[in-house]
Amino acid sequence: MGGEFALIARHFTWPTRATDLGVGDDAALVSVAPGMQLAVSTDLLVGGTHFLPQTDPRRLGHKSLAVNLSDMAAMGATPRWATLALALPSADDRWVAEFSRGMHDLADAFATDLIGGDTTRGPLAICVTIFGEVPAGEALRRDGARLGDDVWVSGTLGDAAAGLACLASRAAADAAGRSLRAQLGEAAFDRCRERLEAPQPRVALGLALRGIAHSAIDVSDGFAADLGHVLDRSGVGARVEVARLPVSPALAGHIDHPVVRDAIVAGGDDYELCFTAPESFRARVEAAGQASGVPVTRVGTVVGGRGLSLVDAGGRAVVPARAGFDHFG
Amino acid sequence: MGGEFALIARHFTWPTRATDLGVGDDAALVSVAPGMQLAVSTDLLVGGTHFLPQTDPRRLGHKSLAVNLSDMAAMGATPRWATLALALPSADDRWVAEFSRGMHDLADAFATDLIGGDTTRGPLAICVTIFGEVPAGEALRRDGARLGDDVWVSGTLGDAAAGLACLASRAAADAAGRSLRAQLGEAAFDRCRERLEAPQPRVALGLALRGIAHSAIDVSDGFAADLGHVLDRSGVGARVEVARLPVSPALAGHIDHPVVRDAIVAGGDDYELCFTAPESFRARVEAAGQASGVPVTRVGTVVGGRGLSLVDAGGRAVVPARAGFDHFG
Repeated sequence: MGGEFALIARHFTWPTRATDLGVGDDAALVSVAPGMQLAVSTDLLVGGTHFLPQTDPRRLGHKSLAVNLSDMAAMGATPRWATLALALPSADDRWVAEFSRGMHDLADAFATDLIGGDTTRGPLAICVTIFGEVPAGEALRRDGARLGDDVWVSGTLGDAAAGLACLASRAAADAAGRSLRAQLGEAAFDRCRERLEAPQPRVALGLALRGIAHSAIDVSDGFAADLGHVLDRSGVGARVEVARLPVSPALAGHIDHPVVRDAIVAGGDDYELCFTAPESFRARVEAAGQASGVPVTRVGTVVGGRGLSLVDAGGRAVVPARAGFDHFG
Repeated sequence: MGGEFALIARHFTWPTRATDLGVGDDAALVSVAPGMQLAVSTDLLVGGTHFLPQTDPRRLGHKSLAVNLSDMAAMGATPRWATLALALPSADDRWVAEFSRGMHDLADAFATDLIGGDTTRGPLAICVTIFGEVPAGEALRRDGARLGDDVWVSGTLGDAAAGLACLASRAAADAAGRSLRAQLGEAAFDRCRERLEAPQPRVALGLALRGIAHSAIDVSDGFAADLGHVLDRSGVGARVEVARLPVSPALAGHIDHPVVRDAIVAGGDDYELCFTAPESFRARVEAAGQASGVPVTRVGTVVGGRGLSLVDAGGRAVVPARAGFDHFG
C-alpha cells in the first residue's frame, strides 16, 4: 500500500526457514518444537546513546541483531526467530538497504528468520526482539553460580570500549581518548572499532556450555557490572585477578593506558560470555571453547559473601574507575 | 545495579502467571503449550508520530499494550506474554510509575505476563512485542477472504481519528478540527478522546471468530487501508456501502462534517476488527459478537477483481479523501 509497507516489503522480506507465517499479517506464526522452552529477549538501540550518528548502517544492522544473538548465547539457546521495529528520521532507501544487508547477513549466518516488523518515522531507534529454543530446564541462567565455581570469560575484553573512546574523542574534547588513538595506531584502532561496531555473538560457545556451566551472562555493560549481576542473582561473591582478564593483541601493549585499563574491567559492548563452572569441568570448558572456536580464560573463583573483589597479582584490592555502563547513570 | 536496573525493577517487575523465568536474566523463558502455534507481533510507538507529547502516561501505557493485544485479537490468538523496550528522555519516576500502571492494568485484564524489557535514555519510544497462542492452523489470517464473503466490522469507526483531529487542532492552525471540536461538545469529544488514548482490544471477539471468519485484520491504519490489506493478500475485491459503516453516538449527529466523514472511512487507531465470513455464518457471527460484548456490523461483500469499492446508498462510487494513515506518506 503506502510507503511504509513498500519499504518493509522491499528490504525486510527475506526467505524464511522455519516460520509458519512471516511478515505481512497482524502477527507471525511459528511452532516451538516439543520439549523446548522459548527464550525471549528484547533490546532497544537509540542513536546517540548506543551508537554514534556516523555509524555505518550495514554495521549497525549487524550489531542490532548481534546484541540479541548474544543474549541467546548467554542462555545456551539456539536462535530461531527475530522481529525488528525501526524508527527512522526519513525513508532513506540507501541507508535502509545497507542496514538490512548487515542484519540479513548475520541472521543468515545464524539461521534466524526475520518474522515481523514495524517501521515508522521518528528519531532513529532500533528494537529487535529475538526468540530461541532451549531444551526445557537446560538454559544457562544468571542465578546458578555456586561456591567454588571457576569464573571464565570468552575471547578478549575492552576492545570495543577502547574503540569507542577513540571514536568519541573526535567529537568531544577528550584528551585520554585522543592519546589512546595516537598510541594504538591504525591497525589496532580498526580492530577495536570492528569489535565495537560488528561484534560476533558467541552462540556456538553458549550451546557447547549447556550441561557444563552453572551460570552465564553476556558482557554488554562491562565485565565487572555483568559478573556482578550473576553474583547478585546467585547470592554469592567472586574474586577475580585483573591481570588474568584476557586482552587482545590490539590492546596488549597498551594495558597501562588508563582508558584501556578501565575498558578491560568495566567497558561495555564486549559481547563475550562470562560464565561459571565447577572446577571438575575445566577440561570440558576448554573443549567447549575449542569446539566453538573461541578461546576461554579462567579468571577467578566464586567465593562466599557478596559482590566482586578485583585483586592484583599480589592479592591487593583493585578499584575500577567505574562499575559499568549505566544508561541512567 | 545502576539506575536503569532500579527503574525496571521498581516499576516493571509484576507477578507472572505462566512464565518459567521472567525479567532479570539475559532472556525470559516460557513454554508454549503442545499443539499451539506462537503468534508474534511487534509495534513501535514514537512521541510526536503516534501520540501527542501531552498524552497522559497512564493512557500511553495502556495504549502501547492495547495496540499489540489488538494484533492478537486479529489473529484469533490468546495473548500470553509481552516484552517492553522503552527509551525515555529522563528517568522521570512519576511518569514511569503512571505508564507502568496503565500497562499493568491492561496486561492484568488480559492475563498477559510482562516477561522482559530494556530501558534506555533517548527520545521517547515504546516498543512492545507480544506473544499469543493459537491452535495450530486456526489463526485468522489476512489472506483467507473468499468470493461472496460478507465484510464485517466490530464496534464503531472514526471516533479515535475525530478525537485526534480535535486535539491536534489546538496546536496547528486547523480550522476543520476546531470547528469539529466546537460542534461535538464536551461529552462527545471526551468519548472520542478515550477511544484514541485508551482503545479496547477486541480479544474476546477474535477468539470467538475462530472457525467462523475466513480472514481478519485490526483497523489501525484506517478501515479502507486495512480492508485493502486483506483484499491484496487474498487476491479479491470488495464492495462496501459507506452509509453502513458503524458510527458511535458521539459522532452520529456529525457524519456530514468533513473530518468525521474522513475519520470513519480512513481514520486510524480504531482497533476494531474488520473480518470476512461466509454468508451462511451470519447468525454465528452475530452470536460471536453478542458473546464477546461487541456489536458487529455487516458492511459489504467480497467480490471479484481487485481493491475496495466504496459506494453510497444509490450504488455510486465514493472517493475517500485519503486512503489511510501512512507513516511515510
